Amino acid sequence: MQHNLPDTISLLARTPAALNAFLRDLPETWTFQNEGENTWSVFDVVGHLIHAERADWVPRVKILLQFGETKSFDPFDREGHAREIRGKSLPQLLDIFARVRSENLAELLALNLRQEDLARCGRHPVFGTVTLSALLATWAAHDLTHLHQISRVMAHQYREAVGPWAVYLGVLQCGGHSSAS
Amino acid sequence: MQHNLPDTISLLARTPAALNAFLRDLPETWTFQNEGENTWSVFDVVGHLIHAERADWVPRVKILLQFGETKSFDPFDREGHAREIRGKSLPQLLDIFARVRSENLAELLALNLRQEDLARCGRHPVFGTVTLSALLATWAAHDLTHLHQISRVMAHQYREAVGPWAVYLGVLQCGGHSSAS
Repeated sequence: MQHNLPDTISLLARTPAALNAFLRDLPETWTFQNEGENTWSVFDVVGHLIHAERADWVPRVKILLQFGETKSFDPFDREGHAREIRGKSLPQLLDIFARVRSENLAELLALNLRQEDLARCGRHPVFGTVTLSALLATWAAHDLTHLHQISRVMAHQYREAVGPWAVYLGVLQCGGHSSAS
Repeated sequence: MQHNLPDTISLLARTPAALNAFLRDLPETWTFQNEGENTWSVFDVVGHLIHAERADWVPRVKILLQFGETKSFDPFDREGHAREIRGKSLPQLLDIFARVRSENLAELLALNLRQEDLARCGRHPVFGTVTLSALLATWAAHDLTHLHQISRVMAHQYREAVGPWAVYLGVLQCGGHSSAS
């Protein structure tokens, strides 16, 4: 299936409200537990989504449009959320995520991208040549990968509690998959 | 981690609003495509969640409380959502899901379950003896397994569009895991 920019924007616009409806004021059992040493809690994941808004998607779009393939994107720091979450509560992170996402979508719309712009190319520090289309599609798919992770981290907290049903619950069969940008 | 009934109820109460915020009026690219032959779209998944509200959780709680282990739960029909979705739109399904979930949580609260009730046992058609605690924990984990599935089905639509980033997106490494009740 081809990338469709309005579909991408529709999804990106909804993620903050969906996370807010699901996570705000949820007991910490669900939001502050992780899957074990060196894994992320839901709280960490929301911090990572904020960090990616600041350091990844729109900044890379701008580098691509200004420099094409002559300048590589800055590498993304997977631990960069540490400074986003320090001293914050989950409701605060949800508010910040909603605000930075909204600002970034406004910046994206202001670029007035045309269909032919989507084929323009930039340089990824690992992959080399990448299209604007793939970068924007990945922004949306990255939301989905972390929604997938959030549901898995939460389900992990009930791995024992569900007793024999564990064998029927797909999310408990998911091995987890690393994710970066 | 032990099962905590207030935590379970907190999660169950939020799922309809979260799905509503994420899915209502989203383009059909995201909601009516599936992962291939004999797989479910997001629309199908919401129909399944409705069917499970009607046929699975609270009906099984009532059988367990009334009959203990002397009467097996009715088997759950994994294709039972077919009649829930026929002729309906996704916004209609989201409204129905919110209503039946709310009604079921009201019924659950009206039972005034005490901590010691959670150890009471019923009979599952496949597993045999199961506790009320595990049944209720599974109700919440079942929401999470289908949130996990929804994010995976949606991400699948952009499998090609994300280009080289596919290797970094955990949700695209997820093989899918069958799920039943």
